[in-house]
Amino acid sequence: MRAFTLLALSSVAVATILPARPSPSPSELIGFSPSAARVEREWEAKFDAIPSPDSQRAYMRHLTARPHHVGSLYDKANAEWILAHFTSWGLDAHIERFDVLFPTPRERVLELVSPTRFRATLQEPAVPGDPTSSQRADQLPTYNAYSDDGDVTAPLVYVNYGLPADYDELARHGVSVKGAIAIARYGASWRGVKPMVAAEHGAVGCIIYSDPRDDGYAQGDVFPKGPFRPRDGVQRGSAMLMQLYPGDPLTPGVGATPAAKRLARADAPTITKIPVLPISYGDAEPLLAALGGPVVPGPWRGALGITYHMGPGPARVHLLVKSNWDIAPVYDVIATIPGSVEPDQWVVRGNHHDAWVNGAEDPTAGQVALMEEARALGGLLKDGWRPRRTIIYAAWDGEEPMLLGSTEWVEEHADELRQKAVAYLNSDTNERGYLEMDGSPSLQPFINGVAKDVEDPETHLSVWKRLQMARIRGAGSNDERRHLRQSDDLTLGELGSGSDFSAFLDHIGIATLNLGYGGESDGGEYHSVYDDFYWYTHFGDTAFVYGRALSQTAGTAVMRLADAEVLPYDFKTLASTVQGYVTDLQNLLKSEQDETAERNREIEEGTYAATSDPWHPTIAPPEQAVPPHLSFAPLQNGADSLTRSAERYASAVAVMRDRGDTAYANAARSRLNALLVQTARRLTDGRGLPGRPWYTNELYAPGMYTGYGAKTMPAVREAIEQRKFSEADEAMRTVGGVLSAEAALVDSAAAALR
Amino acid sequence: MRAFTLLALSSVAVATILPARPSPSPSELIGFSPSAARVEREWEAKFDAIPSPDSQRAYMRHLTARPHHVGSLYDKANAEWILAHFTSWGLDAHIERFDVLFPTPRERVLELVSPTRFRATLQEPAVPGDPTSSQRADQLPTYNAYSDDGDVTAPLVYVNYGLPADYDELARHGVSVKGAIAIARYGASWRGVKPMVAAEHGAVGCIIYSDPRDDGYAQGDVFPKGPFRPRDGVQRGSAMLMQLYPGDPLTPGVGATPAAKRLARADAPTITKIPVLPISYGDAEPLLAALGGPVVPGPWRGALGITYHMGPGPARVHLLVKSNWDIAPVYDVIATIPGSVEPDQWVVRGNHHDAWVNGAEDPTAGQVALMEEARALGGLLKDGWRPRRTIIYAAWDGEEPMLLGSTEWVEEHADELRQKAVAYLNSDTNERGYLEMDGSPSLQPFINGVAKDVEDPETHLSVWKRLQMARIRGAGSNDERRHLRQSDDLTLGELGSGSDFSAFLDHIGIATLNLGYGGESDGGEYHSVYDDFYWYTHFGDTAFVYGRALSQTAGTAVMRLADAEVLPYDFKTLASTVQGYVTDLQNLLKSEQDETAERNREIEEGTYAATSDPWHPTIAPPEQAVPPHLSFAPLQNGADSLTRSAERYASAVAVMRDRGDTAYANAARSRLNALLVQTARRLTDGRGLPGRPWYTNELYAPGMYTGYGAKTMPAVREAIEQRKFSEADEAMRTVGGVLSAEAALVDSAAAALR
Repeated sequence: MRAFTLLALSSVAVATILPARPSPSPSELIGFSPSAARVEREWEAKFDAIPSPDSQRAYMRHLTARPHHVGSLYDKANAEWILAHFTSWGLDAHIERFDVLFPTPRERVLELVSPTRFRATLQEPAVPGDPTSSQRADQLPTYNAYSDDGDVTAPLVYVNYGLPADYDELARHGVSVKGAIAIARYGASWRGVKPMVAAEHGAVGCIIYSDPRDDGYAQGDVFPKGPFRPRDGVQRGSAMLMQLYPGDPLTPGVGATPAAKRLARADAPTITKIPVLPISYGDAEPLLAALGGPVVPGPWRGALGITYHMGPGPARVHLLVKSNWDIAPVYDVIATIPGSVEPDQWVVRGNHHDAWVNGAEDPTAGQVALMEEARALGGLLKDGWRPRRTIIYAAWDGEEPMLLGSTEWVEEHADELRQKAVAYLNSDTNERGYLEMDGSPSLQPFINGVAKDVEDPETHLSVWKRLQMARIRGAGSNDERRHLRQSDDLTLGELGSGSDFSAFLDHIGIATLNLGYGGESDGGEYHSVYDDFYWYTHFGDTAFVYGRALSQTAGTAVMRLADAEVLPYDFKTLASTVQGYVTDLQNLLKSEQDETAERNREIEEGTYAATSDPWHPTIAPPEQAVPPHLSFAPLQNGADSLTRSAERYASAVAVMRDRGDTAYANAARSRLNALLVQTARRLTDGRGLPGRPWYTNELYAPGMYTGYGAKTMPAVREAIEQRKFSEADEAMRTVGGVLSAEAALVDSAAAALR
Repeated sequence: MRAFTLLALSSVAVATILPARPSPSPSELIGFSPSAARVEREWEAKFDAIPSPDSQRAYMRHLTARPHHVGSLYDKANAEWILAHFTSWGLDAHIERFDVLFPTPRERVLELVSPTRFRATLQEPAVPGDPTSSQRADQLPTYNAYSDDGDVTAPLVYVNYGLPADYDELARHGVSVKGAIAIARYGASWRGVKPMVAAEHGAVGCIIYSDPRDDGYAQGDVFPKGPFRPRDGVQRGSAMLMQLYPGDPLTPGVGATPAAKRLARADAPTITKIPVLPISYGDAEPLLAALGGPVVPGPWRGALGITYHMGPGPARVHLLVKSNWDIAPVYDVIATIPGSVEPDQWVVRGNHHDAWVNGAEDPTAGQVALMEEARALGGLLKDGWRPRRTIIYAAWDGEEPMLLGSTEWVEEHADELRQKAVAYLNSDTNERGYLEMDGSPSLQPFINGVAKDVEDPETHLSVWKRLQMARIRGAGSNDERRHLRQSDDLTLGELGSGSDFSAFLDHIGIATLNLGYGGESDGGEYHSVYDDFYWYTHFGDTAFVYGRALSQTAGTAVMRLADAEVLPYDFKTLASTVQGYVTDLQNLLKSEQDETAERNREIEEGTYAATSDPWHPTIAPPEQAVPPHLSFAPLQNGADSLTRSAERYASAVAVMRDRGDTAYANAARSRLNALLVQTARRLTDGRGLPGRPWYTNELYAPGMYTGYGAKTMPAVREAIEQRKFSEADEAMRTVGGVLSAEAALVDSAAAALR
């Protein structure tokens, strides 16, 4: 469900400043002895030649021929079709089914009832020339899955993106959503955050619309002339509170098998508290135009040809949302290639196959790349390749409603995954442009090495080089550019949630990578009926060459992880990244202290009162206590331990490298890999994060108010952000302990290498 | 013609960091002995009580009753009416007439000729309820004065604000305006810059439109519901190349008297090189919607409900502009109050009376404040007040076409002004909100002192305090806030051009202040038929209390300047401001060097090529030579000399202050004031700036590409910006010499005080 944006390029570019690492020679591969690397490179060369753009196009044509959301006939048919292909390529594959709560629309009404009347169409029209856009009988209507049922009539308030800072701004203008219906625009956060925050502020309903500024005509020509969202295009999507836990709302923490104990729906905390409905800008314009009240500040303005007001009213709106709360099956297709040496170490690769409607870009562009990887690996197996470790390829179902297929599968296989999982490699959407690589810092040098070996289809540079250049172009400072030019690695972005990696990374604690290409074929088709074969073959990766590049990138990564004699984790990168997070937290606290003190001072000296325009009065924010100093020592000590252990491990690896083939063979026969495979798990705490026990990773979680966006050291960071300072102190002890435990494990690994 | 914007508040706030000055005690006045200050304060208290909001309302009703542009019957009638009032208040007043080139529209056609046809209305409709908006027969049609005549048909290109950086962006997309008609939106610079830059790039015509993002519905409700520009509202205005010289294009440097030698119109360099016409967004939308070519980058987007493209074409446009190139009279109304002690020292105060149409906000709101000052001073004269120096009140004509009345008057009286002028105090528009105070640093402590004595009508704080608080709210850093809280002075903004101060400051070199209130009643009425009594009494300073505040501010400043025993110039502020300009120039050169080197490096390493999307290719900018190091020593030495001299003068003033009344009386009897009055002139160089000899001030000029916006040390700054580095070196010697001469004069003044 994730939509790649080029914005991400710059935001992650300076997370950590790494010391330059001596580059491995071109033929060297991290974790491989020289002779093993030579063999690996030969197999990889064979692999690289197999994935075919034409095959991917043919798969996409089939998979997107009909709407294929969870519970639809075509969803099941696609799963069986993928299974048949996996099997035909010689893979050992099966379907795993789970039964999950999946609401679909029963009644949807949105109308302006005063001062004038208007009834929203809630309908995406077919577009001439686009054959699948007319399959109305099979299309899921536009809705937000897991909206609570409700029937409300109330004044309307425009809340911008609907995030906490937006409500602060409303309060400064004396505007409240208490008893009102909030209309928010899509963007800036996970959509499920919008009804959550609206409900926190007393709203009785929530409307989310796609403003043309964000993915409509302001960005470019609209479909079918161009790729952007047309007037009546709607972004469907889940509004579930995935920040508590993703997956089936009724079976948190366990697989949704027939035997699973299920919550009553009324007790499921991830269903929204108020009804929520997504609409097009065609439907939104009459509602927004009917608002009065203060004119919005500049950054709140969208691209509709109106004056944006906050309200409340005089527009009154009637919102009715009712769902069929059915249990539906999800069909995960699982293919396994058994490991020849360490079968109990698993490399898992996945992409979802379900879509909101026809879903060409999301997810089929990623799914067809995964299929070509599977076909190519099947080919290598026929040629005699035997991966050292077990490889699992998964085509997940039910990602769109809320990561259902992947989460239930992970929960069902949690114990085994905790034992065995080496890494999870995810993809989702795919387009033209730049490699997106996000994930665990311990895999950063590894995946950078892969990216240096894949050719960009447009420039014929390596995809790594092209991304480096894009980051240089987007860099905000000379320091950032210098780092980008000198470092062997491009820094990985941090993973929050919003795609199938979540249960692997956040719940179990598995080293994770999320891969995809994008940034050059943005559009406004996301989660609409227009995300289909016609759209993708006119505006997406039309030649499917980035599909091939994704197959080569992810497939190569899978092979290297599966074949490495020593697992290619890099703890120096992990440690320096962790040190960066600690510094970030210190800066965060300092800036909260400074900003609070300054704001209080301005309130006291009357600055807010003096600058309130009596014609458009504004209200000073409330004074707040200045945050206390907190003890960062436990965190710093943990981070320093990890830094020292990482140095020791790196020295041991260097000695092994100097000694050559035999040393690698000895290492691989030792208990080293068994220790290494646990290093990612050691960064979890089984008690989970405060208030959300499903999330056990102490380094990463989706933010409660960001959703897609990650919070690093979330227990600490969110406690500071939410001004729960004694919780922050406690969380620093917890995270410090986890870091110390990780350091001890890394020390054991270093000892095993000697 | 200037429109106040709150933006100015933050942009000027950190120009210089001043050492804290010991505050004068509340009753102390700079330049006054204790006993003279007591007398002055008594007269000022009487003055303050006189200006009346009701009177200002009545004046405005009369002055705005009909359109009163240059050459209209009502323009002359208003001049005579103002004269009659000045005379009735006991002032010695007369009208001074000049005869200037003033084009008015003969033919105007703008039409889209392909791919579809559309003819622009070029007409602002009357608004029901707004009685003067229907006076069509008397209204000047919408046009840009001093547009060259022309009749062209060509493809259209959208050029954003039409500034050089915009053409660089077009070039990066392979788009040229050569042989095309450029359509630019209003804003970001003086409108005359837009056709100038378009012509520099080969355009054959230029259209300027008001995008609703900038002063239309994006900002707030449109007239008559709200104050912002309605769909068919047009911003008239001069397109003259005032950066070469303002005033009558035919008589540069001399008053446009009957005897003046006149250029042939064809030889007048300030008339545009290509035809230019302003239009509404109603007329612009069909043209912009018909453009193809690359989609514009985000910052170029306006608020029309369309996708903005660059072009060129397929839209082809026919533009016809023809003017009646008549000679018209301008009527300056001049009132004189003779000085009782130093009659040959003049304090000049002015505001224009002509308008583009009915002109309530621009300029009548300022003009009626000036009239109330004149009435109040007349009252004081009747009560026995006798100012020490001569005071001249001026109601200028012809400001809108291009500062005609003030410029011709200054040119005609140039020799006397060089001898006698102590200061010029300008105002123009006036609205609700915050004091705007821009001008000469030597007057900064003086005008800050005045601002501390004027009460803000809304908050009942001093207008100084309210402005300080607004600047604290808008400050971008803790350093800036600390300075704002600690300094006795709020830094003045720098004056470029765009109102009647230009000839005083830029041509003669007179210490200048520009005063007005604004920031709380922004609108989109500027230079349209809707800037009228109805608009102003619904959306402007409706109670005329800021009109009274302006009378109190400017009137108090006039009285203090006229009565001070020692002219209240502060050379320490001048010197520290100048030091700041030198630092700015060093930073400018450094950043140009760094940016050029980085850009060249990115070009050479292929970064631009690697990040060009083949579907939307972009072209790397050309490599440029890295700017050489320049010798700032002459500037630094001049600035240091001035700093030392300013210290000596300040010490001498401190001694005088310690000695009390007699010391002031002695100083006032010395040649001190005669020396001081020349200090502003000493900052000029009679040879003028490179390529524009009319501009002789070596500290300030309107930028060639900004117009409204000032360039400090313009000969140096623009040479660096335009990469004329040997010119920059030479200019630094010139400016350094001027600063040394100023230092010597300040030393003489210090010596005269001893």
